[in-house]
Amino acid sequence: MAFDPQRALADLDIIAARTGGLDDGGARRLCWSDEWLAARAYVRSELEKLPVEIATDEAGNLWAYLRGDGDGIVAVGSHVDSVPNGGWLDGVLGIAGALEVLRAAADRGTPPCTIAFVDWADEEGARFSRSLFGSSAASGHMVPAELADLLDRDGNRLEDVVAACGVDLARVLEAGSRLQGIRAYLELHIEQGPVLESEGLAVGTVLGTVGVERARGRFTGQAAHAGSTPIRQRRDSFLAAARTALELREIALRHGGVCTVGGATCTPGIVTAVPGVTEILIDQRHLDASVLAVMKADLAAAATRIAAEEGCGVVLEPIWRIDPIPFDDDLIAIARAAVRDVTGTDRALPSGPLHDAAEVARAGIPTVMIFSSSTNGISHAKEEDTPREHLALALEAYGRAVDRVVGGADA
Amino acid sequence: MAFDPQRALADLDIIAARTGGLDDGGARRLCWSDEWLAARAYVRSELEKLPVEIATDEAGNLWAYLRGDGDGIVAVGSHVDSVPNGGWLDGVLGIAGALEVLRAAADRGTPPCTIAFVDWADEEGARFSRSLFGSSAASGHMVPAELADLLDRDGNRLEDVVAACGVDLARVLEAGSRLQGIRAYLELHIEQGPVLESEGLAVGTVLGTVGVERARGRFTGQAAHAGSTPIRQRRDSFLAAARTALELREIALRHGGVCTVGGATCTPGIVTAVPGVTEILIDQRHLDASVLAVMKADLAAAATRIAAEEGCGVVLEPIWRIDPIPFDDDLIAIARAAVRDVTGTDRALPSGPLHDAAEVARAGIPTVMIFSSSTNGISHAKEEDTPREHLALALEAYGRAVDRVVGGADA
Repeated sequence: MAFDPQRALADLDIIAARTGGLDDGGARRLCWSDEWLAARAYVRSELEKLPVEIATDEAGNLWAYLRGDGDGIVAVGSHVDSVPNGGWLDGVLGIAGALEVLRAAADRGTPPCTIAFVDWADEEGARFSRSLFGSSAASGHMVPAELADLLDRDGNRLEDVVAACGVDLARVLEAGSRLQGIRAYLELHIEQGPVLESEGLAVGTVLGTVGVERARGRFTGQAAHAGSTPIRQRRDSFLAAARTALELREIALRHGGVCTVGGATCTPGIVTAVPGVTEILIDQRHLDASVLAVMKADLAAAATRIAAEEGCGVVLEPIWRIDPIPFDDDLIAIARAAVRDVTGTDRALPSGPLHDAAEVARAGIPTVMIFSSSTNGISHAKEEDTPREHLALALEAYGRAVDRVVGGADA
Repeated sequence: MAFDPQRALADLDIIAARTGGLDDGGARRLCWSDEWLAARAYVRSELEKLPVEIATDEAGNLWAYLRGDGDGIVAVGSHVDSVPNGGWLDGVLGIAGALEVLRAAADRGTPPCTIAFVDWADEEGARFSRSLFGSSAASGHMVPAELADLLDRDGNRLEDVVAACGVDLARVLEAGSRLQGIRAYLELHIEQGPVLESEGLAVGTVLGTVGVERARGRFTGQAAHAGSTPIRQRRDSFLAAARTALELREIALRHGGVCTVGGATCTPGIVTAVPGVTEILIDQRHLDASVLAVMKADLAAAATRIAAEEGCGVVLEPIWRIDPIPFDDDLIAIARAAVRDVTGTDRALPSGPLHDAAEVARAGIPTVMIFSSSTNGISHAKEEDTPREHLALALEAYGRAVDRVVGGADA
């Protein structure tokens, strides 16, 4: 039986019915929880119907291997875990697509090469604020000692929580051996943004994950009485921050990236005082590392100029950064062709959010992703949704792209 | 002996040495505390050296009457209480000035009319966030039932705390009888702002206290992923709030008032999300009620226009307001003349902060204030200071103005 998007949609409905979806407050598959394990148990039960070898690696990632004739492994996967009150599609769409890849391939007999299915553990990082747990362990970018003492909201240590699920934090990097022999990784995901929908498109090909520069901007002026300090004698840190936030939008538009001020905190922060200190959280993203560097420099120049004009000082304290991770040109071409064949449209776009695919690509494995549209661009919320016909088209394109890669030279 | 500013300065030094000043972390005369009582005890001890009748009224205000020949009473006073880690001059400068008025008048014999000294209780409201306790009780603008259950940081009820100082909250409005017969009230205070200093002036006359309009501006856009949402598809509540804050500055400059955004709060307020909701605290002030009304309308128009341009909604929720309280024209003229005589300069300015004098004026009693300069415009902080020569000039001008009013027609 051929790759059937409807079977994958049925899997999604079952998982949503068991562990939360659109109609009951959203997904509850927080990693390392009972409901996460329940969703995994369903996936495993479906895998057990196929002629595959199932294994869980040292980082808690679930693998299933459909052995093939040729050399090299093509890997397919995503994650079943969700944020609390999350959406019914984030992650699990790719799991349903990968599962259907195995079903269709097994139906046709021994594939031209081995196909590996993977459900990465704790992609969201929603419990310990540390995302991409399983895939970063496999890629070797995790430093386990940095994670051991992270606490969840109830004060539980990460090391203890993962141990209860059979994961020994000291050994998680051994999961890296699972990447040996993988010559391609393909992942299907919802866009989690409004680009495809706004252009009337169901499916798109992902060029890579954007680079991110995050900083805390601390503007220091002079706290002063709101009633007794004339406007022209103020050094208002909030107005300096406000002008910088507006300039950040111009920087993003000028360079075709995104810049966001996610929050602001004023000190003393009372209605009767000019804010002496204002801190803003700044996030800048671009797919091109050199353009991102220019955006970062533009921010520094703008903040310094504006602060001086407002009689304030400013310090931009880096919080976190990651380089852009471009996907593989050949796989991008295959995915674009598959999307074009299925939908009649061809749109390639960067991914703003990170994904397990980024960790796999960082490990040097050729990687690509396919996105379905996201209704209203909403994700990480119970309202997250995608028209079922868009999901079916995305699944179909994904199945075709994997077929082409698995088929290799004869494709 | 004539009015002697140096005696008043010596009082200030003694009170600072006993209850906190410039050199030891700031004033500690938090109302209803032991150190407040200690400062009052010093004032009372000085009053007891004079031929005055001393009384504490039902609201905890300390009065002393130097009886005179004619009808009508001229009142002089301010407050000895301070904010925590406050300045050595806020309030107590006016107490020292008023005390010196009594000393000089008593020295000259029976004055042409009775002079009433008053130390208002809990002007600052620093403990229960309710300022002008004693003066608002006397003016009749307090609603005691609203205050009974206010709690301080340690969970103590206002009603219990004032009771420990002999004040029965149910009877505080009876202090209003103290205002009967008062035909003028004069108060000396530091400016608590930078206007006089920036113009190189030591002393100024106060035209009244400004009207205040306070609101919480709540901008509602759409929370969205900072990575996946293109700039042009955002409805960013923070940027709408930022533009409104900058426009507020233009409104203040256009109308000669002040406007302040004291704080901002973003939801979800994380670096990875476009803020869906941003709240800002807005304060607008002007001495002219009709201009303040225009400023308020300008804010509403600007916020509505900007929010619409940003794809957001906005609600301006009123928090608190007070009308401008203009001081008495005749007393202003007398005070300006006294300041001019002493300093050779004549500057009249509104007061941004409220004062006990505003409550007295609201009660229908002709009122005026004189300000000394404030170094760097700083107040409510241990760094609060004023050059001693400015304090001496302000005290001298205050003494002359009171003399003129007490002297009546022959002045």
